Amino acid sequence: MDNFNFYSPTEFVFGKDRETECGKYVKKYGGKKVLVHFGGGSAEKSGLLAKVRKSLEQAGVSYTELGGVQPNPRDTLVYKGIELCRSEGVDFILAVGGGSVIDSAKAIAAGTLYEGDFWDFYCGTPIEKALPIGVVLTIAAAGSEGSGNSVITKEDGLLKRGTGSDLLRSRFSILDPALTQTLPAYQTACGATDIMAHVFERYFTNTKEVEITDRLCEAVLLTMVKEVPRVIKDPDNYEACANIMWAGMVAHNNIVGVGRQQDWNSHGMEHELSALYDCAHGAGLAVIMPAWMEYVRSHNVMRFCQMATRVFGCQMDYENPDATALEGICCFRRFLKSIGMPINFDELGAKAEDIPVLVEKLGIGDGRRAGFMELDRQDVTRIYEIAVKAKI
Amino acid sequence: MDNFNFYSPTEFVFGKDRETECGKYVKKYGGKKVLVHFGGGSAEKSGLLAKVRKSLEQAGVSYTELGGVQPNPRDTLVYKGIELCRSEGVDFILAVGGGSVIDSAKAIAAGTLYEGDFWDFYCGTPIEKALPIGVVLTIAAAGSEGSGNSVITKEDGLLKRGTGSDLLRSRFSILDPALTQTLPAYQTACGATDIMAHVFERYFTNTKEVEITDRLCEAVLLTMVKEVPRVIKDPDNYEACANIMWAGMVAHNNIVGVGRQQDWNSHGMEHELSALYDCAHGAGLAVIMPAWMEYVRSHNVMRFCQMATRVFGCQMDYENPDATALEGICCFRRFLKSIGMPINFDELGAKAEDIPVLVEKLGIGDGRRAGFMELDRQDVTRIYEIAVKAKI
Repeated sequence: MDNFNFYSPTEFVFGKDRETECGKYVKKYGGKKVLVHFGGGSAEKSGLLAKVRKSLEQAGVSYTELGGVQPNPRDTLVYKGIELCRSEGVDFILAVGGGSVIDSAKAIAAGTLYEGDFWDFYCGTPIEKALPIGVVLTIAAAGSEGSGNSVITKEDGLLKRGTGSDLLRSRFSILDPALTQTLPAYQTACGATDIMAHVFERYFTNTKEVEITDRLCEAVLLTMVKEVPRVIKDPDNYEACANIMWAGMVAHNNIVGVGRQQDWNSHGMEHELSALYDCAHGAGLAVIMPAWMEYVRSHNVMRFCQMATRVFGCQMDYENPDATALEGICCFRRFLKSIGMPINFDELGAKAEDIPVLVEKLGIGDGRRAGFMELDRQDVTRIYEIAVKAKI
Repeated sequence: MDNFNFYSPTEFVFGKDRETECGKYVKKYGGKKVLVHFGGGSAEKSGLLAKVRKSLEQAGVSYTELGGVQPNPRDTLVYKGIELCRSEGVDFILAVGGGSVIDSAKAIAAGTLYEGDFWDFYCGTPIEKALPIGVVLTIAAAGSEGSGNSVITKEDGLLKRGTGSDLLRSRFSILDPALTQTLPAYQTACGATDIMAHVFERYFTNTKEVEITDRLCEAVLLTMVKEVPRVIKDPDNYEACANIMWAGMVAHNNIVGVGRQQDWNSHGMEHELSALYDCAHGAGLAVIMPAWMEYVRSHNVMRFCQMATRVFGCQMDYENPDATALEGICCFRRFLKSIGMPINFDELGAKAEDIPVLVEKLGIGDGRRAGFMELDRQDVTRIYEIAVKAKI
């Protein structure tokens, strides 16, 4: 196991109707003038925003609002948010939504207190201060409610880039599973895929002797394999939603990933897909991740056998471990298909002829991307090609 | 799943030689005048205290010291510590040791800022403020490095009582697995038993539909089943120590126990054993917990089957689930015996004729203790009796 620091100071407030307490928690963590940041009309239509406003008013906290965050959140709205926070003297940002809204809120939080262009943070400049943020989560997916990460897309050139800092960790995150019961099955499935991908990015490692984090990763994956089909079949299943929602946090606050080298190449390759086609991040991952698995499995076939047997219940083929590895990957792809995810370029709306563009945007040049298996331009090309024609 | 709050703001600093950074972390979290609190001579002899002193001096932090914490830490030393903190103007307590030292430090931290008798906190008075504490952990066991709990024994009458508050959570906890490599096998085994017990106290629940926390509990248990025998056989195995040390934190900061009713009756019954006989807490648990399992298994035999099959790899007997449940409990007891733990009163040094005293001290009266299965005086008597004559 490698040396590490683990720091997850967010107060998680979990359960039915807990969003009605958001005003109390904003106040507890020092917010006096709040920016309520949200996405499209669904938070308004569902009555969630009304509940949030009422809770803030009851707590005597004043607020201003900025909606309109899109999936794959854009820099353009971040600039607007920064301007608004400065002109209104905002001291706390409350993100009401999913990963896109939270990531946008994080960018605004850091950008408001920075004299330069906030995009610097997404090009390597370390964040030195940020406004405190709070979260009311509406979909189990990105894990941004428990992480210090943020991913933003630059409108100009559709560049999707990430940043991370403990300063971006929310002070509190309210997770009410009932809020996810109204989601369309496709969105739930996209979120579930993202959660599983967050675990797999950590699971496939070259670090030896990491039984505790291996087992914790498998715990999240086993939960998803059980609970996701239940909620796809019956979106009103509160208990299944609750298990998935907590699994989504556990998958990404890094408790399952500490002390080990991680991969994140599937996320990198997917970011180019969703930047180019504006597809859902989870859908892009469903196409890329099994293709990546197929391509890299020979790097450590036993690790894929471990996934196959422990997560998907495959029997180990001791004469032919690669068959077990492939069976595990096939189980994963079959699972994704069964919950309504695309599994190849066609189903995603991506085009094989764009592969050179995708590869170019990854910016590998003549180098290699670090990870479980180092990847050069040829490798990522090959992985995109596997994804083009994947089937069950 | 029940509604819950989860809050674990401690910064965990994990890995080889990280104790040399303790001065830096004390400073980061605002300590200027530190009480270094420790146990017997081993921290001195091993050179650990010298490293801690050096690190504090390098960080320009002044300190005073109080050693002598015993296993099952006593109120008498807590009073001494409170007096010392007040007279020296201490603003931060650094616990260098295991659960006893940390629990003693927590009691001093709360007691120093309280006008009344600190023992009030262990009789139900809520804690309203406490000095900040930090931890350099020397044994994987109590999980106190990640929890807000503290257990103290009152010298007069040997009463062992606990308290809990988020204010008692340490600001940082340094976990260097190498520090645990020097421990005698018996102490390691006691610690491992305590870790597993912390999980089982959460695992046996009446809350339905808690797959994610079930799986996380099992992840910790599976890790212990694999790693503990390795370190008992080879105390120098850093990797096994590392997995156990992180498992010990995960087992008790409550990430595996949120949203579900918990039990804690085995801990309660054990506390009377270690208070009366001054035995190691883990050794007492090894005797009590399987006896408790045997007695309560009929309350939900399927939950015991789940443990047997998922944790100990038993085959399910679909015609006779109780046989599988018993086999799982037998596997647990066999595991404890194999790592050198006592499994009955005799091996622990306890006496059957003391059972009425033990039961009396539990203070149940004519009532019942809440938990997985409610227990009255007759029930706990019966459990102690099972523990008297337990064998493999």
